[in-house]
Amino acid sequence: MLRTAVAAGVEVCFANPGTTEMPLVAAFDAVEGMRAVLCLFEGVCTGAADGYGRMADKPALTLVHLGPGFANGIANLHNARRARSPVVNVIGDQATWHLAADAPLTSDIVSLARPVSGWIRSVTSAKSLARDTAEAIAAAGGAPGQVATLIVPSDCQWDPADGIARAIAPAAARRVAPEAVRRAAELLRKSSSPALFLGGQALRERGLLAASRVCVKTGARLLSETFPSRVERGAGRPATERLPYFPEQAIEMLNPHDTVVLAGAKAPVAFFGYPKMPSHLIPEGRKVEVLAEPTDDVAASLEALADEVGAPRDGAVRAQLSRPAKPTGALNPATAGAAIAALMPENAIVVDEAATTGGPFLAISATAPRHSYLGLTGGAIGQGLPCATGAAVAAKDRRVISFQADGSAMYTVQALWTQARESLNVTTLICNNRSYRILQVELHRAGVSEPGAKAKALTDLSRPDIDWVRLARGLGVAAVRVESADALVVELGRALHEPGPNLIELAL
Amino acid sequence: MLRTAVAAGVEVCFANPGTTEMPLVAAFDAVEGMRAVLCLFEGVCTGAADGYGRMADKPALTLVHLGPGFANGIANLHNARRARSPVVNVIGDQATWHLAADAPLTSDIVSLARPVSGWIRSVTSAKSLARDTAEAIAAAGGAPGQVATLIVPSDCQWDPADGIARAIAPAAARRVAPEAVRRAAELLRKSSSPALFLGGQALRERGLLAASRVCVKTGARLLSETFPSRVERGAGRPATERLPYFPEQAIEMLNPHDTVVLAGAKAPVAFFGYPKMPSHLIPEGRKVEVLAEPTDDVAASLEALADEVGAPRDGAVRAQLSRPAKPTGALNPATAGAAIAALMPENAIVVDEAATTGGPFLAISATAPRHSYLGLTGGAIGQGLPCATGAAVAAKDRRVISFQADGSAMYTVQALWTQARESLNVTTLICNNRSYRILQVELHRAGVSEPGAKAKALTDLSRPDIDWVRLARGLGVAAVRVESADALVVELGRALHEPGPNLIELAL
Repeated sequence: MLRTAVAAGVEVCFANPGTTEMPLVAAFDAVEGMRAVLCLFEGVCTGAADGYGRMADKPALTLVHLGPGFANGIANLHNARRARSPVVNVIGDQATWHLAADAPLTSDIVSLARPVSGWIRSVTSAKSLARDTAEAIAAAGGAPGQVATLIVPSDCQWDPADGIARAIAPAAARRVAPEAVRRAAELLRKSSSPALFLGGQALRERGLLAASRVCVKTGARLLSETFPSRVERGAGRPATERLPYFPEQAIEMLNPHDTVVLAGAKAPVAFFGYPKMPSHLIPEGRKVEVLAEPTDDVAASLEALADEVGAPRDGAVRAQLSRPAKPTGALNPATAGAAIAALMPENAIVVDEAATTGGPFLAISATAPRHSYLGLTGGAIGQGLPCATGAAVAAKDRRVISFQADGSAMYTVQALWTQARESLNVTTLICNNRSYRILQVELHRAGVSEPGAKAKALTDLSRPDIDWVRLARGLGVAAVRVESADALVVELGRALHEPGPNLIELAL
Repeated sequence: MLRTAVAAGVEVCFANPGTTEMPLVAAFDAVEGMRAVLCLFEGVCTGAADGYGRMADKPALTLVHLGPGFANGIANLHNARRARSPVVNVIGDQATWHLAADAPLTSDIVSLARPVSGWIRSVTSAKSLARDTAEAIAAAGGAPGQVATLIVPSDCQWDPADGIARAIAPAAARRVAPEAVRRAAELLRKSSSPALFLGGQALRERGLLAASRVCVKTGARLLSETFPSRVERGAGRPATERLPYFPEQAIEMLNPHDTVVLAGAKAPVAFFGYPKMPSHLIPEGRKVEVLAEPTDDVAASLEALADEVGAPRDGAVRAQLSRPAKPTGALNPATAGAAIAALMPENAIVVDEAATTGGPFLAISATAPRHSYLGLTGGAIGQGLPCATGAAVAAKDRRVISFQADGSAMYTVQALWTQARESLNVTTLICNNRSYRILQVELHRAGVSEPGAKAKALTDLSRPDIDWVRLARGLGVAAVRVESADALVVELGRALHEPGPNLIELAL
C-alpha cells in the first residue's frame, strides 16, 4: 500500500493511528519516500491534509482509527470537500472476520464517510489493497480534487499483498465547450454592467490574469467567492473584490450588475438563511451564465474568453507593490491586518480563520508582496491551525502566517504540537477577543440587542480567560502576548524570521 | 422546546452553538430551570452529556451546530451509545427553505447521526417542535437509555411554536420471563464451574447485591465486562472480577467455566481481532444462557434468580473497608492507583481513561470507600475529561476523580476550561508517560519487537514533551506536577478537598 502510494507521487501521511493500523505503522520504516507526521487529534490530520492538498495540488494520506477516529476528522474533511482538495483517507477497521462481533469500537464507517467523501471503498482483501490504493489516489487527484476514503480492515493490512500497483492517471479537468465561451463573451459585450464571478481554480494566478484581461476589455467587475480554497494575491497579481459574508451586503454588491458570468464558482448563496432574506444572492432577473464549473478547466476557459473578447495578451491589471505603514497605537482588526501586510515576507502563505478580526487584512493586503491566501471553505471552525500545519509541510521554504480567531483555535489546538515536532515555519496570530464575536453579531442581527445572562455566557470566552501563551508553550511552541499595535509590529517582525513555529497572542 | 424539556425533567444543556442555534440561545434566558453549560468543542458537549446521563439516569441536551459541529461530537456519542446513556442531541440546521441552496455548512446530518443514534428526527415545522422534543426525550430515556438526535432547522426555531408538549413516559425496562430465570437457575445448579457475567445495569448496587447472593449460593464466579458504563464499587458492595482487555487473558479467565450466565451484558468479544485469535471470548462448547439483555430489567431478573436458587436475602458478600497504605517511592501505575485508593473520599466518582496506567487501581480500590466507576465503554479516546465534566454537573456534592492518560486527554483538553468556568469539583490526574503506550504494547504484540524510527515516532508523545501544568493553567485550572509517589500523596490529599477543579500531572 505505501509503496503504491509513493509510486503515485504521494509523499506525506498525517497519522493518528490505533491498534487496527499497526501493520501500516510498522510498514513506514520499510518504505522510502513516505513521511509520517504524527498529529494528536484526527481533526489535525484531516485539516493538515486539506492544507497540504491546497498547496501541493496532490493528495497526502491521512491515517486514522476506525469510525470514531475518522469522525474526529469529519469537520475538516467537510472543509476539504468544499475546497475540492485532494485528500486520501486511510481508515483502519476491524478485521473482516471480526466485524460481525460488533466489538466496542465497531461502527458504520461508510455512513460517517459518505457526507464528506467523493469516493469511498471498503477493502475486502490484502490482494486488492495495492490496486484499491492506486484507485483511491487517482480518485482524489481527479481535477480539481476531492476527498477519497479507503477503509482498510486490519487483516487486509497484515495478510500478504500482491505487489505494488502502478499509478493511475487522475481524471483531467473537463475542457469547456467553445459555445460556452462564445455565449459568455456575447453576454459580456451586450451588458452595460457585467460582473465576472470567480471561484476555485480561477483564483490561481493563471485564471486571475485571464480574468483580469476579460474585465479590462469588457468593463466587467472582477468578483470572487467569499471563502476561497486558495487565492494567489498581492503584488504582480490582479486583485478581486471578495463577496461579503452577510447576505444584505452581498446582494448590494451584486445588485448593480445585469449580467454575472461564473467561472469556477457556483452561483453564490447565503451562508445561512435569515428571515425574509433569499437563499440566492444574485438578484432575480439577472442573466447568469456558467463559463466553467468548478470541475472544468477554468483557467483555460478564462483564457479562451479573454481571447474571444479580444483582450490583449498583456492586458491584465497587476497590483503594484505597496505596503501599509507599520501601525501604532491600539490593537484592533485594522491594526492587526496592517501589521501583517506591512511585515509579511514575499511568498508567504496566509491561512485565514481570523473570523471577525480578519476583515481589514484582505483589503489592505491586496498590494502586499505576493502570497497565497487559504480560506475557511466549509465554515467548519477548527480549520486554521491544522491547515497551516499542512501548508507548511507542503511548502517548507515559505513562511506560513496562521491568522486565527481564539474560539476556532480551541477546536484543534493540538496542531501546535505537530508544528513544534516538525519544526514547521508557522507564525500563529491568535486574535484573542475572549468571545465568539460572530455569534454576538448574529444575536444582534436576530433582534436580540440586549441578550440575557445565559445567552451572553454562551458567546463569551472569558471566565476564565484563556492564556494562549501558556497553551502554546505547553505544546512546545514559543509564544508572546502583545497588547498594542507597536508591540505586535516588534514581535511579528521577529517571529516571521525565526525558524520553526511561534505564536503571538493578540489581546484585542 | 426548552419549556417542554424542563417539563420532562431535563435540567442541563451542554452547548456549543452557532448561528443556526441563535433563537434557542436567546430562549435560554426566558426559561427557568434549564442550565446552559458552554463547552469549547462539541466532543466536550457530548462526552459531558454521556457522563451526566450515567450519573443522573436521565438525559441532558447537547446543542451543536449543523453537521460538522455534530461530527465533532460523534466519538463521544459512540461511547454514549455503547454505555446506553440517555442523551438528547439538538442539532441546529439550515432553515428548511435554505437547505436546497447547499450553503457551505450544509451536509447530510442524518448520515452522520445514524451510526451513533438510536432515534433520529428531522423537525419540519415549529408547530411540531414541542412534540418532537418530548418524543426525543422519551426515546432517550427508554430503559436503560440511548442517544436520541433531533435536527432542528433554524426557521423551526424562530417561527412561533404551538405551546408546550406534555412529557411522555419513556419505555420501561422489559421484565424477564420467569422461564429465563428458571433456566438460568437450573444451569447454575447443574454446573460444576459456573460463572455469572454482568454488564450494564447489573453493575449498579441492586444488581450486584442480587448477583452476589446468586454466586454465594451456587458457587458461580462473579465476573464483569471490561469497560462498564457505571459500576458501584468499594466498601459495602460486592466486588466483581473484571474481564481482562487482551483476548488471551480473557479466554484464560473464562476457560475454566463450563457455564456462563449473562446478565445485562452481551457475550464478551475481543476488543480487536488478532491473527489466530477468536472473536468470541467464551470458549466453544460452553453453555451460555442469557438471563437478561442489556435493555431488560436486569436488577429484577437477578433478584428473581437469587430467590430461585434459594439464596438468603442477606446472602451477598460485601467488601469490607480497607484502604491501602499511602505509597512512597517511585511513581508508576501501582503507586498511582494506590494513592487514589488511599485518599479518595467516600462517594467519589472515578472516571477511568488512564489506559495502560489504570490497571492496578481497579484491583486495589475494591475495598476503598464506596464510589462510582465510569469506564471507556466504546473505546473512542477523548472521553475522560468530558465525561468527568458531565458527571460533576450531575453530582455536585461528590468529588470526581478524572484518572486520565495523556494521549487521550489531548483529544478533548478543552473540557478543562468548562470545569473552570462551572467551578466543578473535578481532580484530574494526567498520567504523563509521553507515549501512546498501548500502541507500543500492540506493536510488540504484532511481532514488531524492534520498531523503526518512524513507527517509534508515531507512538511517542515526546519531542516536544507536553507540559500539562501550563496547559491546565492556560485553561484556568490550577495544576501541579509530581515526580514521586510521596509528592502525589501530598498533592492529591490537598487537591481532593479543594473546591473547584484542579489537575495533577504525574511524571511517569
